[in-house]
Amino acid sequence: MELLKSHRTIRKYKATAVDKDILTDILESGIRSSNTGNMQLYSIIVTRSIDKKADLAPFHFNQPMVKEAPLILTICFDVNRFKSWCLLNNANVDFTGLLWLLNGTIDSSILAQNICVAAESYGLGICYLGTTLYNAPEIGKVLCLPEGVIPITTLAIGYPELVPELTDRLSLDSVVHYEEYQNYSVKAIREMYEFKEKLESSQKFVAENGKENLAQVYTDVRYKSADSQLFSKKLLDMLTEQGFVFE
Amino acid sequence: MELLKSHRTIRKYKATAVDKDILTDILESGIRSSNTGNMQLYSIIVTRSIDKKADLAPFHFNQPMVKEAPLILTICFDVNRFKSWCLLNNANVDFTGLLWLLNGTIDSSILAQNICVAAESYGLGICYLGTTLYNAPEIGKVLCLPEGVIPITTLAIGYPELVPELTDRLSLDSVVHYEEYQNYSVKAIREMYEFKEKLESSQKFVAENGKENLAQVYTDVRYKSADSQLFSKKLLDMLTEQGFVFE
Repeated sequence: MELLKSHRTIRKYKATAVDKDILTDILESGIRSSNTGNMQLYSIIVTRSIDKKADLAPFHFNQPMVKEAPLILTICFDVNRFKSWCLLNNANVDFTGLLWLLNGTIDSSILAQNICVAAESYGLGICYLGTTLYNAPEIGKVLCLPEGVIPITTLAIGYPELVPELTDRLSLDSVVHYEEYQNYSVKAIREMYEFKEKLESSQKFVAENGKENLAQVYTDVRYKSADSQLFSKKLLDMLTEQGFVFE
Repeated sequence: MELLKSHRTIRKYKATAVDKDILTDILESGIRSSNTGNMQLYSIIVTRSIDKKADLAPFHFNQPMVKEAPLILTICFDVNRFKSWCLLNNANVDFTGLLWLLNGTIDSSILAQNICVAAESYGLGICYLGTTLYNAPEIGKVLCLPEGVIPITTLAIGYPELVPELTDRLSLDSVVHYEEYQNYSVKAIREMYEFKEKLESSQKFVAENGKENLAQVYTDVRYKSADSQLFSKKLLDMLTEQGFVFE
């Protein structure tokens, strides 16, 4: 419980390698997580070699932890293995619909989070690399993923060199609803985001980027519509090429 | 670590309610999980009322735990709250692409898994209800979800009445790859699934369903192509109506 509540994303790692037995234990904890129909539609690609990390780095926008963390785990939605087994058994599996893309994303994420909790219980630190979906086709090539294996998320794992402050969160009341969703009044929205807007770090972001307010830093700088459209199109093209259906 | 490794899905719960402080603690652990850009694009709907559980039950195909578990948590991808804040700040947010649907699914799932680990640390049992995506539009109506709030997964939570045996998993070697994905030979696939095919429970499934083998139970009975297409279409229609773009 305390472990979960004290979670920080670690962006600076010691060079210390992660012991093989610890890695095995962490991965074992990962695959004990719940998954759809116990089909285990996922694969984990472990990257420890300096060369492979260098190959992956540009597709994670050269975030330093890709090269610095001793362990990089790419968590993939994998229908290739299960489909191969079905084909050998004269059984036709169809995972081409959006339902399965989302099921696979859920199962891969649950697995990833179990790996994070297990890693943290060993004193390791983790960082999720959301860049995985931005450059899934290129990451797939680096890791030699066959058709039916889609990178969903990546974890950098290692012993923390720097442990940052706990990041802020909206109050629990702001994200939890009882029995029915209670939509937010303008007043409620203003009040719940006020502390965030007033954080020193937020005000620095706003000034540095020459924006009017924090929300504009999110929409005009960090998560631009043009980027969302570009990367969504890349994902759609890759998935459609692999037989996924979006109509 | 032992907690993660001993995870079982619980399908039979005691009537004992979950203490309010425990619920708060579990939810707090949930929202400490990593999330994209700390935007917290999720909401948690807590269902405890008998009436609401009865309303939800048919959309979870009347699995008994929906009515029996003291707590039902529907975890949703929520852009409504964040978008409302952006609009008040003259900022235009665009989360309509596939990238954001997947980001939101990942963040919701990571949150859900933290809730599960926290719940289990209190001696509670959990069950993921994959039926959430099958009937997301109907579940959304029961919970009064506004536009921009999509149910991703549901957790039944309560004190276990029955703790089943640990379920089987493929060996770690079968799902982990080092440096590059090593595709599977026919021999490797046969060997890694052999123990599963030989399980007494598997053989019972095959016989009961009049199929030739276990793979066909999956493809012809449990996860039929027609169902996948139907439920994928429902999801696509709901998301398209809400402005998501799949082209």
